[in-house]
Amino acid sequence: MTERPYSTSAYREAARTLAATGRRLYRHGWSPATSSNYSQRLNAGHAAITRSGRDKGLLQETDIMVVDLDGRPVGDGKPSAETLLHTGLYRRDPAIGAVLHTHSHAATVLTMHWPADHVTLEGYELLKALDGIDTHESRLTIPVFDNSQDIAALAADVDRQLDAGRITHAYLIRGHGLYTWAADMPACYRQLEALETLLAVELDRRRLG
Amino acid sequence: MTERPYSTSAYREAARTLAATGRRLYRHGWSPATSSNYSQRLNAGHAAITRSGRDKGLLQETDIMVVDLDGRPVGDGKPSAETLLHTGLYRRDPAIGAVLHTHSHAATVLTMHWPADHVTLEGYELLKALDGIDTHESRLTIPVFDNSQDIAALAADVDRQLDAGRITHAYLIRGHGLYTWAADMPACYRQLEALETLLAVELDRRRLG
Amino acid sequence: MTERPYSTSAYREAARTLAATGRRLYRHGWSPATSSNYSQRLNAGHAAITRSGRDKGLLQETDIMVVDLDGRPVGDGKPSAETLLHTGLYRRDPAIGAVLHTHSHAATVLTMHWPADHVTLEGYELLKALDGIDTHESRLTIPVFDNSQDIAALAADVDRQLDAGRITHAYLIRGHGLYTWAADMPACYRQLEALETLLAVELDRRRLG
Amino acid sequence: MTERPYSTSAYREAARTLAATGRRLYRHGWSPATSSNYSQRLNAGHAAITRSGRDKGLLQETDIMVVDLDGRPVGDGKPSAETLLHTGLYRRDPAIGAVLHTHSHAATVLTMHWPADHVTLEGYELLKALDGIDTHESRLTIPVFDNSQDIAALAADVDRQLDAGRITHAYLIRGHGLYTWAADMPACYRQLEALETLLAVELDRRRLG
Repeated sequence: MTERPYSTSAYREAARTLAATGRRLYRHGWSPATSSNYSQRLNAGHAAITRSGRDKGLLQETDIMVVDLDGRPVGDGKPSAETLLHTGLYRRDPAIGAVLHTHSHAATVLTMHWPADHVTLEGYELLKALDGIDTHESRLTIPVFDNSQDIAALAADVDRQLDAGRITHAYLIRGHGLYTWAADMPACYRQLEALETLLAVELDRRRLG
Repeated sequence: MTERPYSTSAYREAARTLAATGRRLYRHGWSPATSSNYSQRLNAGHAAITRSGRDKGLLQETDIMVVDLDGRPVGDGKPSAETLLHTGLYRRDPAIGAVLHTHSHAATVLTMHWPADHVTLEGYELLKALDGIDTHESRLTIPVFDNSQDIAALAADVDRQLDAGRITHAYLIRGHGLYTWAADMPACYRQLEALETLLAVELDRRRLG
Repeated sequence: MTERPYSTSAYREAARTLAATGRRLYRHGWSPATSSNYSQRLNAGHAAITRSGRDKGLLQETDIMVVDLDGRPVGDGKPSAETLLHTGLYRRDPAIGAVLHTHSHAATVLTMHWPADHVTLEGYELLKALDGIDTHESRLTIPVFDNSQDIAALAADVDRQLDAGRITHAYLIRGHGLYTWAADMPACYRQLEALETLLAVELDRRRLG
Repeated sequence: MTERPYSTSAYREAARTLAATGRRLYRHGWSPATSSNYSQRLNAGHAAITRSGRDKGLLQETDIMVVDLDGRPVGDGKPSAETLLHTGLYRRDPAIGAVLHTHSHAATVLTMHWPADHVTLEGYELLKALDGIDTHESRLTIPVFDNSQDIAALAADVDRQLDAGRITHAYLIRGHGLYTWAADMPACYRQLEALETLLAVELDRRRLG
């Protein structure tokens, strides 16, 4: 019998956390129609991630599986099509413990209606929910990547922009959604909730002209 | 004792599924005030469908009944007034296993405020939630039919447009709502959630001018 | 021991129904901050109604009391300040079995932002949720009364407009909210949900210009 | 063994109330991303308050702690960074029994999009949910303070404006949120719900132009 390359109890805890987090994000309306994917690091070489095409409003522990950091499945099943966007982050930074990706209304409208390659958030108290930001007198630039079905190419592009220091906490994909990451899931969830809230504020302010 | 022309266990499973689906659609706000109707195929000649006038937020298995594919009730009770729009789809395509119809805010505003005979959705990642679409570089045209209380005539009109290949995944009825269908209920629910989400995006983009 | 002038079991059923209805209306966001009041007829001379100032999101059976049709409490406690707007309806029409009043965002904005003395809803399928309307080719005129803290005077004014046939299913009070009524609570709830949904649609269409 | 300077049962009741109130405010969308803080007076010299950085959607009794009215923790842990804005209110007015602070969309947009130093609410029935207001023919002025990370300075500024009679029921902090207070938690919650509802109405009316 082959031993698993990760701790079963760490996997179970990650699966419980990811399923509960997904149901919560769905209730916010940020993960409709089986969209979105979520992951949590298990160890130096593996992460738990949502399987492809699961209904996030009904997410269960059995909807979670394990991949190595090249995005290859460990065990049965097909991981999210965007697995490489998660594993690329875990591979480049051992301090990253959780990655969340959502498909919100605000992120979709902001990136489809305006052709800009970034969205800027500035002056909000809620920016303090982001790691390393301790005053509202901050400006966060969120790069917008054009959407692509070539996830490996998109992951490489994200990697280059991270190398260049042009991405700090999050990025957007046009007409698609938001990626953010942090040391653990509570920090990552907090960051995602702050960003989605502020993107909706930003959209409403643009609506006001 | 006459035998039922369908399997009791298939009916029970369909009734459970339809009731749970309806309560979920109500929570999204897409089925207010006893509006909307939902169905699931039982076999080559029958479908389970919501009874007329039931509160979708409180939908129970007893709110579901059986009709044949001419829309005639099998057993007691009165099926949804729009039954023919469901059975017409099952009759023309044996691959259709589920049909959902909702009355959302976005569908109502988009079809009442603009006189156009279609709504186009293009460039969204979420289009991939629709059967047979595998890239955001897709364009979906959703025809808009004028509303009518003559459901048989409306069903015949829909049938003709389907024959002509002018309807792929869904259609709208003006001031009324959305119809969509798929091989089974999970696919149909996913498709409906994607379409309602994108109709709200489309409405917001038009609001932005 | 004085006998109660109404059936205890009818009262208990009404209290359960009113409490459940109120919690549901609160979840829709239509009854914030202890606003709103709801009633159900018990017999020819009495109705169950919400007590004054109760939190509708936490509404319990003990938050319901009995009044006669002149609005006088039967038993302890203080009924809603707007009791006369309920009892006036029960007194004039024995066919009325339930009255609902809500304070929604759409009703408030529509009546505060525009000085008109009515709101018109026309051409919507959802109008069929209203008693006696069986086609979307209908036009509903909802009168708007200016707000007043003199509830007896407002009730008399409503009565006169009902006498004159200028009110059919519902009326609005400016900056305040909607009143509607029906033969029983399911019909009244259905009607309220349709009206609130359509007021939000109407507001959004005016927003679109 | 040192005795606690407050009643254990009062503390437990306050912790239960604050946790339930926080989860409720989160469900309204007014306390995202660990933002917001809530408190309840225990006695002449102490209050129970939310610990720093807790997820309001998951708020538990263990997320509540005790501070004296100079904002110093009694027992372990770190209270909310904005504790002085709560204790300043309890210190100046023995009739204040509860303080709520939220971070809503409407409060953020209204104070970021317009540079005004106040927001006015006038003519709404829902103003009657505020202590001491008994007619819709009222005008409430809510001062807007510029945001600051120097909470002691901000608390002193609020204190001066209260001394000058320029604040009655509530104030806003720009890009940050709303503070309101009352004799007890039910009154404070009612007041907060009314204010947040009316701020959303006010924002929508400005959107209508």
